[in-house]
Amino acid sequence: MIFDFFSEIKNELSVVEDELIKAVRSSDPLLTETATHLIMAGGKRLRPAFCLLGGKFANFNLDKIVPLAVALELIHMATLVHDDVVDASLTRRGRPTVKAQWGNRISTHIGDYLLGKSLILISQYEDPLIPRVLAETSVKMSEGEILQISTTYDTNQSIKDYFYRINRKTALLISASCQLGAVACGASRQLHQTLRRFGHYIGMAFQITDDILDMTAEQTKLGKPVGGDLRQGIITIPTIYALSKSSARSRLAEIIIKPEKNEQEILEAIDLITRCGGIDYSAGLATQYINKAKKELYGLPDVPVKRTMQIIAEFIGIRKF
Amino acid sequence: MIFDFFSEIKNELSVVEDELIKAVRSSDPLLTETATHLIMAGGKRLRPAFCLLGGKFANFNLDKIVPLAVALELIHMATLVHDDVVDASLTRRGRPTVKAQWGNRISTHIGDYLLGKSLILISQYEDPLIPRVLAETSVKMSEGEILQISTTYDTNQSIKDYFYRINRKTALLISASCQLGAVACGASRQLHQTLRRFGHYIGMAFQITDDILDMTAEQTKLGKPVGGDLRQGIITIPTIYALSKSSARSRLAEIIIKPEKNEQEILEAIDLITRCGGIDYSAGLATQYINKAKKELYGLPDVPVKRTMQIIAEFIGIRKF
Repeated sequence: MIFDFFSEIKNELSVVEDELIKAVRSSDPLLTETATHLIMAGGKRLRPAFCLLGGKFANFNLDKIVPLAVALELIHMATLVHDDVVDASLTRRGRPTVKAQWGNRISTHIGDYLLGKSLILISQYEDPLIPRVLAETSVKMSEGEILQISTTYDTNQSIKDYFYRINRKTALLISASCQLGAVACGASRQLHQTLRRFGHYIGMAFQITDDILDMTAEQTKLGKPVGGDLRQGIITIPTIYALSKSSARSRLAEIIIKPEKNEQEILEAIDLITRCGGIDYSAGLATQYINKAKKELYGLPDVPVKRTMQIIAEFIGIRKF
Repeated sequence: MIFDFFSEIKNELSVVEDELIKAVRSSDPLLTETATHLIMAGGKRLRPAFCLLGGKFANFNLDKIVPLAVALELIHMATLVHDDVVDASLTRRGRPTVKAQWGNRISTHIGDYLLGKSLILISQYEDPLIPRVLAETSVKMSEGEILQISTTYDTNQSIKDYFYRINRKTALLISASCQLGAVACGASRQLHQTLRRFGHYIGMAFQITDDILDMTAEQTKLGKPVGGDLRQGIITIPTIYALSKSSARSRLAEIIIKPEKNEQEILEAIDLITRCGGIDYSAGLATQYINKAKKELYGLPDVPVKRTMQIIAEFIGIRKF
């Protein structure tokens, strides 16, 4: 569990957990049930954790930071729920998705509900930077989602397209979490900008690793079938690299553009990608981002959680789930 | 066109129109195309209009109010797009919906994108009341949507359930538009609270009239098939009233709970509802709300747009589309 890496902020995270459950309560029983189900289904609470850690570099104040930490997780959950609507995926983290249990209509509005609850929390903050950064992040996240849809099955996309997309999909919210936790605790501009860059690099490494794991992880650890991205026509960095190699391109492209792929074809594609170095290349890129993240840490004050940040940076690259 | 009623704020509304188009621009061409299509498809711009009118009761300032007016329309559009996702309705205002053209996945994220763009605009405001009211409105609107889903085909719902639902679905955002337009222009608490109540009553009357028109309007004016609510199992006030009459209840309930109804059955249901007074009763309720709205106007300062507000109140009850 990545949770162990957050021992420095264990108590604060449990406050966030309690507040998360309180935050989604509604007078409507169906809504309370659904939202609580979503929270209980877990998740790494990576964004609240980064928010709290960011705050530890400034004048940490639990009351000031918790609503933001909760809001960040709610925004993240809302995007997951909306992703479930569109991807028709039946499980997430090994549990049935909201969609599988209640259908598309409920999922759409549950996502909006979670987003609305996050806005209530965010509207408490006086520093305009917090709503502004989150609003811009939301817009870019939606752009990323739409870009992912419009580039599905597109075997001609570049590494640059991929970076642009995963920045919007993942890195921006992690980056905002690191930055805004510090902002909520009165950090200087220099401090929160450094944390923002740290979060960006960590977020990029995190998503690249996610995309590698989608091809290499054991199904039980991943909580979803291996090769899910390939199945859905989502082209990630190991595939983009492999498509640039003449030895793999033609057969790989042939498999990718099939709307329905059988198990055999998925495994063949992963094998092609691996053999021409797509996994190793991607792991190398993740390492480069981790190194950049670690460099940003040099510039931060020497507080106890700095060590935690270093460990997280290390872990992102070697995690298996 | 309801637009004619807004001659007092014609120039301001055209500024809003320009800014709406600017607001949804993206670096992604698909996104710009989709969002622009949505805007061009029109709509009454009721929320921006109420926002501008509200501002006219205070120290009207176009620069201060326009971002809010645009944000209100974006929020409204986002809910329409998300409604399209869940209702599987193929047309809205006589044009193909985003869903019909691009599918569920794009619609979900376009809605989120519009919402995000509205957040950017809202984050400019220093008065915390504006983000707070809009955040609470968003949450309640989602609750209303979910309630509408969970009460579909439920022939035992009360008039109170209906009022609760349409307040969330429609009245709250119109109410917020009237109130916050004034807030953005520096209104006193007493002034913006009066406008908020006015907006609430107008919004309730508007939705009741909408629900009547869904049964009585000519299809060409409505831009969608008559009896759409009945078809989808959405039970509105004329139906609730008719279900309370023993002469209609048993046959009406029988038709309503059918998942698939033919044209004949829809027309029979509307006929049953009309004959036992469901339409007249509902029209009477709308009139009561309009009278309450007009009473609120007495307390407002005598500015030229006060007459516009009165005319709008009258029009809401007699509109045919």
